[in-house]
Amino acid sequence: MLFTSTEISALEARYRAALINSLSGFKPANLVGTANREGQTNLAIISSVVHLGSHPPLLALIVRPSPVERHTLENILETGCYTINHVSDQFIEAAHQTAARYPREQSEFAATGLGEHWMEGFAAPFVREASIRMGLELREHRQLDINDTHFLIGEIVLAEVPQGHLGEDGSVDICAAGTVALSGLDSYYSTRRLRRMAYAKPDLPPTPLG
Amino acid sequence: MLFTSTEISALEARYRAALINSLSGFKPANLVGTANREGQTNLAIISSVVHLGSHPPLLALIVRPSPVERHTLENILETGCYTINHVSDQFIEAAHQTAARYPREQSEFAATGLGEHWMEGFAAPFVREASIRMGLELREHRQLDINDTHFLIGEIVLAEVPQGHLGEDGSVDICAAGTVALSGLDSYYSTRRLRRMAYAKPDLPPTPLG
Repeated sequence: MLFTSTEISALEARYRAALINSLSGFKPANLVGTANREGQTNLAIISSVVHLGSHPPLLALIVRPSPVERHTLENILETGCYTINHVSDQFIEAAHQTAARYPREQSEFAATGLGEHWMEGFAAPFVREASIRMGLELREHRQLDINDTHFLIGEIVLAEVPQGHLGEDGSVDICAAGTVALSGLDSYYSTRRLRRMAYAKPDLPPTPLG
Repeated sequence: MLFTSTEISALEARYRAALINSLSGFKPANLVGTANREGQTNLAIISSVVHLGSHPPLLALIVRPSPVERHTLENILETGCYTINHVSDQFIEAAHQTAARYPREQSEFAATGLGEHWMEGFAAPFVREASIRMGLELREHRQLDINDTHFLIGEIVLAEVPQGHLGEDGSVDICAAGTVALSGLDSYYSTRRLRRMAYAKPDLPPTPLG
């Protein structure tokens, strides 16, 4: 089935959103935790976290100009920090529920039953149930003219991973840690490792590891 | 295991790259196809495609300032177009091999055995073996000062999905289509759908669909 540009723009809005959201491939499922200056917390499921570099350790994030994600954005701009927490198979329902349009004064932690975990000296809440979580400091913020989304770059200043799933080479077995993947707007997936590949070189054939 | 900012920056470079690349969660596995004005083709595996919006249908892409990804960037800037093709379990090895540092004059299509598929009027090659693939036109390009990576925004002008995996609501069952997910630098995963969730509302509990 082939869709042209004209056909895509003529699609019914919800159909188009479901289709286009499926096209980027599997997405990471993360909960972004924030608080305002008064300590009022917010939690939002975000599927747009992307690796930007390891040195310095940077992740970028797209925040949509929607009522749901606006509280997250406002808190990040107010405090300059936020947490990113992997969604695991143990709390998919609660994580998805953070996408509901709760009023400003209601925390998604309380509303969904997820626990707040605070670390000394860090002004945003982590998710107690998450086994992989990071604290980030905002380094750059731009609103993109093309569709008013916000592009945020943050530096990882704290990273917590389960010791048992941290490999000798520094890689984390996020599948074993229970991290799930997202597709489209609403589908959650567990994963199974098919292959780990050796570093690719022009003069060597592709080589599976281990 | 908790890493602070100081500890992260003191890690050995390869260990740090493996660790930080694991932290964003599962990543999409896509092959980006390009050609220069003379028709010399290039193909690169890229794990940084991110959904930016559905109307207009926009995907963003991070391209690293590395020798491998530079050919992709140069071709996109030269022709203004590129393709994004989902990596499926049928050709993980070939897809991974495109990350090898081939010289400019050698196409990763020929080097890895993946087939070029051309569509009338579109100046970049699709991957013949891919079942989900898109043609994009470049809309915006910025080099990010923070670490010299390139941020590209493209509009989807062609989208091809298997009819049998396209739902009535517009969502594509990318798991059934064989699309794989990536973690870290080198691990490929198949997926299994755990749950599809209804649209979240503040006054309703989380509700699995179907």
